[in-house]
Amino acid sequence: MDSTQLDDLCIKTIRMLSIDGVEKAKSGHPGAPMGDAAMAYTLWTRHMRHNPANPSWPNRDRFVLSAGHASMLLYSLLHLTGYKISIDDLKNFRQWGSITPGHPEYHIESGIETTTGPLGQGFATGVGMAMAQKYLAGRFNREDHRLFDYHIYGILSDGDLMEGVASEAASLAGHLGLGQIVYLYSDNHITIDGTTDISFTEDRGRRFEAYGWHVQKVDGNDVDAVDRAIAAAKNETLRPSIIIARTHIGFGSPHKQDSPDAHGSPLGPDETKLVKERFGWPVDNPFYVPAEAAAHFRKALDAGSTLESAWRSTADSHAVKFPELGRELAALMSGKLPEDWEAALPVFDLSAPKIATRSASGKVLNAIAQKLPMLLGGSADLAASNNTDLKGMGEFADSPAGRNIRFGVREHGMAAACNGMALSGLIPYCATFLVFSDYMRPSIRLSAIMGQRVVYILTHDSIGLGEDGPTHQPVEHVASLRAMPNLDVIRPADANEVAEAWRMAINRADGPTALILTRQNLPILDRTKYAPASGAARGAYALADPADGAAPKLIIISSGSEIHLALAAQERLASEGIPARVVNMVCQEAFERQSAQYRNEVLPPSIGARIVVEAGATFGWERYTCEKGDIIGIDRFGASAPGNVVMEKLGFSVDNVVSRAKAVLGD
Amino acid sequence: MDSTQLDDLCIKTIRMLSIDGVEKAKSGHPGAPMGDAAMAYTLWTRHMRHNPANPSWPNRDRFVLSAGHASMLLYSLLHLTGYKISIDDLKNFRQWGSITPGHPEYHIESGIETTTGPLGQGFATGVGMAMAQKYLAGRFNREDHRLFDYHIYGILSDGDLMEGVASEAASLAGHLGLGQIVYLYSDNHITIDGTTDISFTEDRGRRFEAYGWHVQKVDGNDVDAVDRAIAAAKNETLRPSIIIARTHIGFGSPHKQDSPDAHGSPLGPDETKLVKERFGWPVDNPFYVPAEAAAHFRKALDAGSTLESAWRSTADSHAVKFPELGRELAALMSGKLPEDWEAALPVFDLSAPKIATRSASGKVLNAIAQKLPMLLGGSADLAASNNTDLKGMGEFADSPAGRNIRFGVREHGMAAACNGMALSGLIPYCATFLVFSDYMRPSIRLSAIMGQRVVYILTHDSIGLGEDGPTHQPVEHVASLRAMPNLDVIRPADANEVAEAWRMAINRADGPTALILTRQNLPILDRTKYAPASGAARGAYALADPADGAAPKLIIISSGSEIHLALAAQERLASEGIPARVVNMVCQEAFERQSAQYRNEVLPPSIGARIVVEAGATFGWERYTCEKGDIIGIDRFGASAPGNVVMEKLGFSVDNVVSRAKAVLGD
Repeated sequence: MDSTQLDDLCIKTIRMLSIDGVEKAKSGHPGAPMGDAAMAYTLWTRHMRHNPANPSWPNRDRFVLSAGHASMLLYSLLHLTGYKISIDDLKNFRQWGSITPGHPEYHIESGIETTTGPLGQGFATGVGMAMAQKYLAGRFNREDHRLFDYHIYGILSDGDLMEGVASEAASLAGHLGLGQIVYLYSDNHITIDGTTDISFTEDRGRRFEAYGWHVQKVDGNDVDAVDRAIAAAKNETLRPSIIIARTHIGFGSPHKQDSPDAHGSPLGPDETKLVKERFGWPVDNPFYVPAEAAAHFRKALDAGSTLESAWRSTADSHAVKFPELGRELAALMSGKLPEDWEAALPVFDLSAPKIATRSASGKVLNAIAQKLPMLLGGSADLAASNNTDLKGMGEFADSPAGRNIRFGVREHGMAAACNGMALSGLIPYCATFLVFSDYMRPSIRLSAIMGQRVVYILTHDSIGLGEDGPTHQPVEHVASLRAMPNLDVIRPADANEVAEAWRMAINRADGPTALILTRQNLPILDRTKYAPASGAARGAYALADPADGAAPKLIIISSGSEIHLALAAQERLASEGIPARVVNMVCQEAFERQSAQYRNEVLPPSIGARIVVEAGATFGWERYTCEKGDIIGIDRFGASAPGNVVMEKLGFSVDNVVSRAKAVLGD
Repeated sequence: MDSTQLDDLCIKTIRMLSIDGVEKAKSGHPGAPMGDAAMAYTLWTRHMRHNPANPSWPNRDRFVLSAGHASMLLYSLLHLTGYKISIDDLKNFRQWGSITPGHPEYHIESGIETTTGPLGQGFATGVGMAMAQKYLAGRFNREDHRLFDYHIYGILSDGDLMEGVASEAASLAGHLGLGQIVYLYSDNHITIDGTTDISFTEDRGRRFEAYGWHVQKVDGNDVDAVDRAIAAAKNETLRPSIIIARTHIGFGSPHKQDSPDAHGSPLGPDETKLVKERFGWPVDNPFYVPAEAAAHFRKALDAGSTLESAWRSTADSHAVKFPELGRELAALMSGKLPEDWEAALPVFDLSAPKIATRSASGKVLNAIAQKLPMLLGGSADLAASNNTDLKGMGEFADSPAGRNIRFGVREHGMAAACNGMALSGLIPYCATFLVFSDYMRPSIRLSAIMGQRVVYILTHDSIGLGEDGPTHQPVEHVASLRAMPNLDVIRPADANEVAEAWRMAINRADGPTALILTRQNLPILDRTKYAPASGAARGAYALADPADGAAPKLIIISSGSEIHLALAAQERLASEGIPARVVNMVCQEAFERQSAQYRNEVLPPSIGARIVVEAGATFGWERYTCEKGDIIGIDRFGASAPGNVVMEKLGFSVDNVVSRAKAVLGD
């Protein structure tokens, strides 16, 4: 068998495995794997530097299947090149408990680098991976010790290129000159609804040139042409590359090639038979892998072992020469934080002037960044408002290991890029106004699904921001973020709770955190009078009980800036003989993880008289109030006026809290 | 005063009013109005065809200030050209209750065409307005009767062009060849964080050429050059136009021109004085409008009256010649629905086979579209899955009044475009999978803020969709949509409730509706046995009470596909001697609008034993359950497996409902 024949056999193997997986599941997307098999084969056997025996090798090339519906393509490649995905796993495609779900789900042990499926996300996450590569290279690479020089490869679909998140990320990648990106765009002229003629007629190559990308066009079925294009793309180190590969959805299917029918449903037994006959494949032997093909693919194991060994010697010599960097690298690879990092958390003195929690966050961030070399990030063009600048730590765009990223007004691309950075071992943060968290919600969801430590700094957290008006005043956002699984939403009440919030966010290795911060200044809470800020770690805590030790008749539950209102109301109520407790509900998610005993201590079931005070949607707060309680919230859009005026008009005043509290008590 | 001097005076007037408004409010964005005044003046005095005395004139040119932070520019223009915004309104900028809020809020009586501020939205909403113009022209224009030939003008900022939503809309507009769009892009080289060099270096002109746009470059301060460019753009009828106008943020400010400092804060009294001195303006007379300038701007009133009169004669003659279209136009202008449209709503017979609510929606949509000529829409490349095709009603892209829009995989641009269509008097619908509602959330929010009738068709509504897995299985989405003010979220349980849901959505003239529909087939509920589907209109209703007339001891609250599970559980409980009521909570928002009496009838406070069954986040459901109740929901991400398997594994089985119901009862 000559090499062309071997190529052909291997490509067919991918195609047939993908068809068989979908057929067996009676569900899935056969068309894309069939169309993209040749170029994926070329990439994986001629260019990818990886080690299937150690999917966590830090300098591996990353492969992102942005067209996540083509998951059987990825699973086939992972199986064939020697990752832990077995033939049985392929047979279990899309079944309960399998490691081969409908769309790829991040699982590094299997070689799945990121969760994809929602279109455009893989593209933008890959950009974040390239940003991580740039940072790691800048931080660790030294003369003869190039520890990080990996590439980010990806396969994209038409849908990926139509999504705005990919446009944002593409523009950013071009701006940053992320030359390690090599994307293969499967230009198959077909979308679910028909041919691309009906909705997608722009000149994609020209668009990417406008972004500053290196653009090539090839026949996606021509192995040598794809090979040359990838080589040229790797050779272009100053610009990201996109290779527009003409492919054919459902390639080889007599009735479905080049048709949307090949996209999202199994070919069916009859068509499968016809395809196999056409390709000279055994028709009665599903999941067949010819021995020659298997042997060829499995060369990745030896090659990978050699690659990684060479890298390890470089790393060893690097560690000798640069011991501090060596320790940093070891920490990066172990995923451990420096033991003493929390010592860097500042304490805000009571005598300090009033300070917005966004400003306190900026101070905390600058303090801890000294101890956390993997912490980097920035804002979507609101750095001064979000207080995200790391002073003296360089510009990401200009310096080898600069840590200040200027994302531009690209919230969605920013969040997706942070996922890519987190997946690469960094601790990324990104920022915008809370109201614009909506712009990046699909990527926040992916942080949560993948359990990635991304810190979302969301400032200007309520109607308290004032004059900018309802388009800029979040109302339902905190509630809608709280509804999302595996996202911790922390709304600190003063500067010291901001420090606690950062402690929680950084220590949370298995998921993202949203920090909800004020625009307006807030006093520092007097912790000699009130419970310590460390209570925040448990999600909610009794901040203030009646001064005279009386048993509370009422609980005021609040968070963030409204805590100060709650405390004022508590004092007024006390002066009227009504003892109340103020519970600071900093993070509902963390509170729900506490024991029932602790939760009942904070919110004793015997005290049914409760009032919530939070400048946001009431939705969801009934969990803590129930029929006897009341909720002072906002179930309308805000209004443009000075922040204190809007607050007062919408019911956030001591008078209103006190009178509604009395109503709850039946007074 | 020659015409050049007059131009200059008028432009200064805009600049000074804008500065004064921001100074007086001590809050706002002076830099953009100062920079954009000359081009805005040119557009408004030499090209805009509008009638300030009747801001609702249907054939007026639309002006969209996509850079909404430049609101004082718009308010100044509206005041000067004779709209109802007075000098006092300008003085009240950003104050409680004023009609001149921080960012423009849709208020057609004042001439404000759409709410802007969240970047990119205005751009994409304008694309929707142009789509509406195309549709209205196709529907109504006849030979000598060109009733709709208006243009959509807009002013864009760097931020607008960086946002993905604008990229999506730009690609769509290019594809559709929306030649009536003429956008002025204020290319001022400055963003909030600094110069555009730090984040936005792509070749914007080339990008828009790639989308198929007509691109020009001019000096934004050169009135005649801007004039010529707009004329050329209008002359280009087959492609949308963008004019890249080099402008200078804070133009004329000695210390802040071309600096981010001019962006988001008042100039301050000292700098304001310097600017006024430089421009030869009285320094002690804020809100000064020279008489010559006022007179020149106010010519818009006479011109507008003439334009509208001419249009009305054309419309009258059109109505004589095409009486049916005339009636349709009258209805469009009055905003009234045809009286008999509800008669078109289909009834689904009990004998019909099981049908997914998404399929039922397709049938309803096709039936009512016959009666509602302003109803049009489509899907983000999932037409067959979302069941959105209007059979026989033509392709929007190809035929003059085609009603099937192929939005491509551009959810965000789609939703924003629908806002533009709704603002133009149409009834747009758009569709994707529920999980991808996240992609368009910022635009859904604007539908809600503006109170626009956009129907969001969101199918594949829970883990019931099965194999596609967690990235495609909505969990928190229904809750997060319910948290949004002024959005009705309707989750029907069978085909007949789908018809009711459409009745509610279409009759709701003051806000958007999200229809939450299943992928999987559901039986038609036997309405001889259960309460009629018309109960859906009240948001929730008692669908089934104990068959033997016994008083219920327990209420099962459910929605959508889980209703069938709730009914099965009810039967099982009955067989065990436990009488239960099933409440169908079709739409929480509509239920909350009912009288307390009705709500207490449906959910009698005396029956505290309640169990909610909904395949989504439990968040928010405590409103109806409280401490005695229980909620069977999903507070984790889903999983890839056949839909019935995932449902069963995550607790949606009769056994589980029955056993948890018994636990609630303490049995």
